[in-house]
Amino acid sequence: MRIALSQLNLHIGNFEGNLAKMLSAVEAAKAQNADLICFPELAVCGYPPRDFLEFDDFIKRCQASIEALCEVSHDLAIVVGAPTRNPVLAGKDLYNSAYFLYQGSIQAVQHKALLPTYDIFDEYRYFEPATEFKTVSFKGKKIAISICEDIWNLGNENPLYTICPLDEMMPEKPDFILNISASPFNYAHANTRIHTVKANVNQYKIPMFYTNMVGGQTDVIFDGGSLVVSPDGMVFDEMPYFEECLKVYELDEVMKGGRQQEQPKDKIRLIHDALVLGIRDYFQKLGFSKAILGLSGGIDSAVTAVLATEALGHDNVRVLLMPSQFSSDHSVKDAKDLAENLGIHYDIVAIKPMYDAFEVALHQQFEGLAFNVTEENIQARVRGTLLMAMSNKFGNILLNTTNKSEMSVGYGTLYGDMCGGLAVLGDVYKTEIYELVKYINSYPIGKQQMVGVIPQNSIVKPPSAELRPGQKDTDSLPPYEVLDPLLYQYIECRKGPSELIEMGFEEALVKRVLRMVNINEFKREQAAPVIRVSSKAFGMGRRLPIVGKYLS
Amino acid sequence: MRIALSQLNLHIGNFEGNLAKMLSAVEAAKAQNADLICFPELAVCGYPPRDFLEFDDFIKRCQASIEALCEVSHDLAIVVGAPTRNPVLAGKDLYNSAYFLYQGSIQAVQHKALLPTYDIFDEYRYFEPATEFKTVSFKGKKIAISICEDIWNLGNENPLYTICPLDEMMPEKPDFILNISASPFNYAHANTRIHTVKANVNQYKIPMFYTNMVGGQTDVIFDGGSLVVSPDGMVFDEMPYFEECLKVYELDEVMKGGRQQEQPKDKIRLIHDALVLGIRDYFQKLGFSKAILGLSGGIDSAVTAVLATEALGHDNVRVLLMPSQFSSDHSVKDAKDLAENLGIHYDIVAIKPMYDAFEVALHQQFEGLAFNVTEENIQARVRGTLLMAMSNKFGNILLNTTNKSEMSVGYGTLYGDMCGGLAVLGDVYKTEIYELVKYINSYPIGKQQMVGVIPQNSIVKPPSAELRPGQKDTDSLPPYEVLDPLLYQYIECRKGPSELIEMGFEEALVKRVLRMVNINEFKREQAAPVIRVSSKAFGMGRRLPIVGKYLS
Repeated sequence: MRIALSQLNLHIGNFEGNLAKMLSAVEAAKAQNADLICFPELAVCGYPPRDFLEFDDFIKRCQASIEALCEVSHDLAIVVGAPTRNPVLAGKDLYNSAYFLYQGSIQAVQHKALLPTYDIFDEYRYFEPATEFKTVSFKGKKIAISICEDIWNLGNENPLYTICPLDEMMPEKPDFILNISASPFNYAHANTRIHTVKANVNQYKIPMFYTNMVGGQTDVIFDGGSLVVSPDGMVFDEMPYFEECLKVYELDEVMKGGRQQEQPKDKIRLIHDALVLGIRDYFQKLGFSKAILGLSGGIDSAVTAVLATEALGHDNVRVLLMPSQFSSDHSVKDAKDLAENLGIHYDIVAIKPMYDAFEVALHQQFEGLAFNVTEENIQARVRGTLLMAMSNKFGNILLNTTNKSEMSVGYGTLYGDMCGGLAVLGDVYKTEIYELVKYINSYPIGKQQMVGVIPQNSIVKPPSAELRPGQKDTDSLPPYEVLDPLLYQYIECRKGPSELIEMGFEEALVKRVLRMVNINEFKREQAAPVIRVSSKAFGMGRRLPIVGKYLS
Repeated sequence: MRIALSQLNLHIGNFEGNLAKMLSAVEAAKAQNADLICFPELAVCGYPPRDFLEFDDFIKRCQASIEALCEVSHDLAIVVGAPTRNPVLAGKDLYNSAYFLYQGSIQAVQHKALLPTYDIFDEYRYFEPATEFKTVSFKGKKIAISICEDIWNLGNENPLYTICPLDEMMPEKPDFILNISASPFNYAHANTRIHTVKANVNQYKIPMFYTNMVGGQTDVIFDGGSLVVSPDGMVFDEMPYFEECLKVYELDEVMKGGRQQEQPKDKIRLIHDALVLGIRDYFQKLGFSKAILGLSGGIDSAVTAVLATEALGHDNVRVLLMPSQFSSDHSVKDAKDLAENLGIHYDIVAIKPMYDAFEVALHQQFEGLAFNVTEENIQARVRGTLLMAMSNKFGNILLNTTNKSEMSVGYGTLYGDMCGGLAVLGDVYKTEIYELVKYINSYPIGKQQMVGVIPQNSIVKPPSAELRPGQKDTDSLPPYEVLDPLLYQYIECRKGPSELIEMGFEEALVKRVLRMVNINEFKREQAAPVIRVSSKAFGMGRRLPIVGKYLS
């Protein structure tokens, strides 16, 4: 039996586009004599469809795609994810299902039982969990079909659910397991995924064919990395990350095993590739092609400019240099050097005239009051307004350059440097950005020779917002080497104050930093969507109250 | 037996404050010879605590409050909501529980079974559903204790869950039902709540004592309206809306019934009161007292100014009038009249100098390009920057004045008139704002005589952003009388295109409006939190993808 896995980049709600991609994959699989093709979870509508699922019309369109796929299933069985209406009145109205299509009709529908409802996931918001589990018979084999999370309750110390759906199918003695997934990227996830698939194979002693989605959906990136694990627990194949892929596997070969085909999983390279894909798909799926951003001469905007150029091409990236009266001599030069290295268009617009106009306009109200964060913010907001004006006039999307360290502690101006359609680096700590710089400056990426593209001066100078004379980030914040590990423990690992102090962080620092994080929830609430690369990004995956008084 | 219900305004994560309020209520209940007092769901930590629940330290502090309440439970039984750790490794780590405290110890803990996971609710994100149900014996009576949603699976045509927890307790023949809730306000909810409590009483033929939370938690408002329904299905008492309340009920009296004590439920009055509470609690819980907003001479900012003045007092509200070169003669006069009527401080700052400075600065880039939405947005962003400068300098929170019609179709400038810490009217359609104006102008509210406070000219002139000569909202949008009913059907009722056309909306209008709503998700993603007054507000209760291609 020949089994095809189709790792596709789907688009939420783009029924025509998603169907067209699946129909071409069906053709390609037929051309390679496949017996069966697997598409990802909720492939017909894209993942996560969120509250679109509450529209009857949306579900009808999903069903229409299933019917269209039925029509091409005469010589090839198709396993594909789609929502199904729950025929019982009690319970949620939908199931998250895997359809098994063959010979022009729906041969079986297996619903999902384990509904991830944590981090970015909200599946119990929409779906009723499955309570029935049956294998599917096909060409003399019995297939256990499962959906994403259904295989994730094995191999954990503290399992999230009280059942393992595949346990329920094992009395029927299936020959192999199919899993169709929409399992999002984070830089540590590929290892966890392999661990989980292996745990299932080792438990049930049959091979697993695991098909994942690929592509960016605003904040959430799917990395692909679809897997075939043979009964000996070895990775027979792992599909590439961050690109579409179709491969056909001979079941007999997989049964034999003895092949280990894993890809390298370097953290910084994965983050880099995820961000490039995230930018590219955000633009492509919104129907835009051109980006703009502000270039300060610092490394955050430099890295964002490089990533945008890789994603969109240098003709499609335009930058604005907006020096203030407090900008250092080097800032403009460093920014210009970078723009020239990248071959992107730049303009220089000094912000002083607008800043002065605001100062005059508010002269009466502010009389006798000292220069403070107000005036710093005015400068940042003048920059935001200039960038948005360029964005509006030329149809460019503004990319935000805020990093995760800043976003955590609220070191940024709302409606100023926090403007933008997409926060490219909002899930990357400052110390990780230095690693990204090293990676970018020493690897030839894509067509363009990037070696040394980011000016050395941007890298070595101390980080500064340059909004008052001689300002440094360390005037307001602990050094990033101290701050970032603490933020990681608090945000990603959810350690509380006493645990952090036990880990060796200084008590005063813990109090100060946790307070800064918690009182700035109001800023993050209005931040641009953040491309998620860690296990805990700001946005839908982290939901905290604004008026909460805890640790603040 | 004397049963006290304590309807409290609690604050998320404010353990000391919440405990202090409960301890005083315990004292007051003891003074009135109560045998038992009921506090709301998750009263120790406030509702919704969201991801704070993921911190071990947060759960420890919840448990410490339960211990403190135990200590005062010697002569008075206490029913109170708190999270409980799940002792079993499999499943979610927590339960959402009702504690029954008496004689200094925890006598019983009943977990919640029905975990709302829709609209603003995310309970299955954190909690394992209960599977065991037992009544509690107290002073010769058997009590069925339930938590919020646990009573909501009765009296619906399409129930969300497959069980009714109270069914499981009925074989033990309880004498009455206690329900502790955190059931948020919308203008139609009080009726639904009474319907639901009555459906339970009619089903089980025993009385119910229902204790709800009150108060604003950023976007979510709890209205109180705690209920006692006697076995005859009559409303023995309904506590006031939008304020704290403690009352003690004699069980024998309630058993007798024959009393109907419902409050009026006028939609516009409820919305008005909810918004005033929402503003007041947002400020009080964040530790702020002063608000600023821009006054345009139109009704949205007028209504916001009135509500803010009612919530915070006229000494704590300051407004900025920011005429542009396109502002009508009347705008400044109307805004001044309102400020004077309210007795609030106003400043006038013309935006032309800043606008001109931007025009000059971008002259080279924009050469030969016509005035368009870019220039309109620059004006709106100059206003946003001025308001935020005042907010930063004087520690005032900026109130946003965008209405729900505008927010739906994206008729507003991101980082311009969309600035602000709280969107007061973001869940109120323009046509409803006219009703609010009528209500405000004809009722004496609080201490202040509000009759006629909003100038007639603001009400009768056609709505306009005044960002280009002679601009009217109807240049870009259908008239609000046409737009709002369609938005209501799409947003609140989730009707799709074919259903809307069937209802009689014109096809071209449906397409145009649905597209406007869907392509503006990116703006709403960065909007200020919206005070929720309807059954479907923008924010956590409505989750839609930004890159989605559906109906756009």
